[in-house]
Amino acid sequence: MKILVSGAGGFVGRKLIEQLSAGHQVVALDKSCAGLVPSPELTVLEGDICDPAMRETAISDGVDALVHLATVPGGGAEQDTDLAWRVNMEAGQALISVAAGQGNRPRVIFASSIAVYGEPLPAVVDDTTPLRPFLFYGAHKAMMEQWIATLIRRGAIEGLSLRLPGIIARPPAPSGLKSAFMSNVFHAALAGESFVSPMSEKAAMWLMSVEQIARNFQHALTLPSDAFVEPYAVTLPAVLVSMKDLIEEIAVQTGWDSARVSYEPDAALEAGFGSYPPLKAERAKALGFEDDGSVARLVRAALGHIRKGTKGES
Amino acid sequence: MKILVSGAGGFVGRKLIEQLSAGHQVVALDKSCAGLVPSPELTVLEGDICDPAMRETAISDGVDALVHLATVPGGGAEQDTDLAWRVNMEAGQALISVAAGQGNRPRVIFASSIAVYGEPLPAVVDDTTPLRPFLFYGAHKAMMEQWIATLIRRGAIEGLSLRLPGIIARPPAPSGLKSAFMSNVFHAALAGESFVSPMSEKAAMWLMSVEQIARNFQHALTLPSDAFVEPYAVTLPAVLVSMKDLIEEIAVQTGWDSARVSYEPDAALEAGFGSYPPLKAERAKALGFEDDGSVARLVRAALGHIRKGTKGES
Repeated sequence: MKILVSGAGGFVGRKLIEQLSAGHQVVALDKSCAGLVPSPELTVLEGDICDPAMRETAISDGVDALVHLATVPGGGAEQDTDLAWRVNMEAGQALISVAAGQGNRPRVIFASSIAVYGEPLPAVVDDTTPLRPFLFYGAHKAMMEQWIATLIRRGAIEGLSLRLPGIIARPPAPSGLKSAFMSNVFHAALAGESFVSPMSEKAAMWLMSVEQIARNFQHALTLPSDAFVEPYAVTLPAVLVSMKDLIEEIAVQTGWDSARVSYEPDAALEAGFGSYPPLKAERAKALGFEDDGSVARLVRAALGHIRKGTKGES
Repeated sequence: MKILVSGAGGFVGRKLIEQLSAGHQVVALDKSCAGLVPSPELTVLEGDICDPAMRETAISDGVDALVHLATVPGGGAEQDTDLAWRVNMEAGQALISVAAGQGNRPRVIFASSIAVYGEPLPAVVDDTTPLRPFLFYGAHKAMMEQWIATLIRRGAIEGLSLRLPGIIARPPAPSGLKSAFMSNVFHAALAGESFVSPMSEKAAMWLMSVEQIARNFQHALTLPSDAFVEPYAVTLPAVLVSMKDLIEEIAVQTGWDSARVSYEPDAALEAGFGSYPPLKAERAKALGFEDDGSVARLVRAALGHIRKGTKGES
C-alpha cells in the first residue's frame, strides 16, 4: 500500500512514519521534515500543504491512502485564525480533493480531536454526545469530519475520522498546543526539576501515548472497507487520569520527588483540558481501536518514547 | 437596526429586502442587484462576496445584523465544486468574520438548508435527526452551521441558522437548483401549458412560500437575544405535500387542467427531493417560526407571488 502522510514531520507523524516504513511505501509531507531520512520505502517531501503545486506533487505518483495529520493546533489557531482556516480547512479540503480525484477511492484517515466536544462536557461522553466546539481548532475538526463523511457517502473516498485525546509525551519545544503541560510534566520529572502544574490535583484528562496513537492509525489503515459505517467519525478510547495520579505514577517510575510539584491551577485551562468525565468509546473499541490500558502503561510508554528520543539524539 | 443582506438580489433576498425596507436601514449585497432601487433606507452594493474589499465595504459603516443568504445552490455546487467551496465556505466565513470583527456582537441569521439531512431520511425527521449530507451544498451548509455556532458560543456574534425547505415559486429562469421543478409546475399552470413531472404522484416534499420564509427571517431578526440557545440551528416547519396533491391544488386555484400533467419520475431526483417524511419542527415552532399552514394557503401564496411579479414587470 502507498500511503501519504501529511504533517509527517510532527510528533505523531514521525512515530507513524517509523511504524509504517516497515512494509509500506510512504510519502511524508510537511513544512519541516527534519530527521526523516529518505529510503526506497520513504519519499520525503518538504513543502507547504497550502501550496497547490505541493499537493499535486504529493499525489502525483498515486496513493492508496492518506493519513491527514497536518494541522494548526489549538493554541496556534487561537493566535492566528486566518492561518488556521487556510491550513485546517482550505488546504485539508484541497489535499483530500486531489486524492479523491485519482478515482481510486483512496482511504482517508483524518486526525480529528476531542476538541470537537467543547466545554463544559456532560457527566459521561459517549458516541451520542453532540459536537459543540469552542476552540477554532475544534470547530475546524468538526467541520472537516462533516466534509470527509460527505465524500465517503458519495463514494469518492473511504475512511474514518479519529478523534484524538491528549497525546504524550511531546517534545519540550513550543508546539502551539495549549495542552503542552501534559508532556512538560514528564520532561520535568526526567530532569529532576520542579514543576508548576496549571491543573489542580483533581483535574482529569484523557490521554494516550504516541506509540498507541500510531498503532491506532495503522489499525485504521488495515481495517476492511466494510468496517467503515455511519457515522464516519469515532472518539478513540483513552486513559482517564487525574493530574495527581499522573504525577505520582511518573514519580514512581522515575524516582522523581513529587514534592517538587506545586499546583497553581489556571481555571480557564482546567475547564478546557482538565475537566474530562468518564469516556465510553464503544464504537471505536468495537472497531478494534485501543487505549494504553492503564495509567502505569501509559506513563511507561510516554517515558520510553522520551528516553528513546534522547538516546537517538546523543 | 442596520441589516446587511448577502445574496440580496436572489429570489428570497429580494422578498426579504422588500419586507425589511419598511422600518430598517438595509444594505443589499449581491453580484447582481438588478431591480433593487437605492433609497434613504436601502443601500445597494453590487459586487462579489468573494472579493475581500467588497466584504469590507459592506460592513464599513457598521451593521447590527447580517442575514447571510448568498450561496451556490445544490445543482450549481455539484457542477462547480471549487466555486461552491469559495462562495459557500470561504467567502461566508470571511464575511461573518468581518461582521464579528466590529466588536458589537452582531446578530447573524444564516440560511441553511434541509439538504444537511441527506438521504435516505428516517421515518420522521425531528430536532434530533443527525446531519448526514450527500450534496456538496448540504455539506457546506452543515459545516457553516458548525462554524456559526462556534462563533456564537465564543460571544463573537449572536444568532441562529435556519434550515430552509423548498421555497416556491421561484422565477422560471435557471437557478442552479435541482429542485426547480417545484416552482416550474406553477409557471406551467399559469401559462396553461403541459408539465412533465420528474416526481411520481406520491413524491412528498417540504415546501414554504417565499413570503413565509421572508417573514421567518424577519422574525429571527426580532427575537430577543436570550431566545438563542444550543443548538444554534433549527429546521423550519414546512408544509408536507405530495406532488399529486400539489398539482391538484394548483389546478383548483388556476383552472389548469391537471390532465396536462404527465409523470416521468427520475429516481435519483425523487430520492433527493421527493422522499420527505413527516417533519416535527418543534424547536422552531417554539421559537415562533411558522409554515404556510395548509397546502391551499401555500399554493395561494406562491401563485400570488408570481402574479405580483408579472404585474410589476408589465
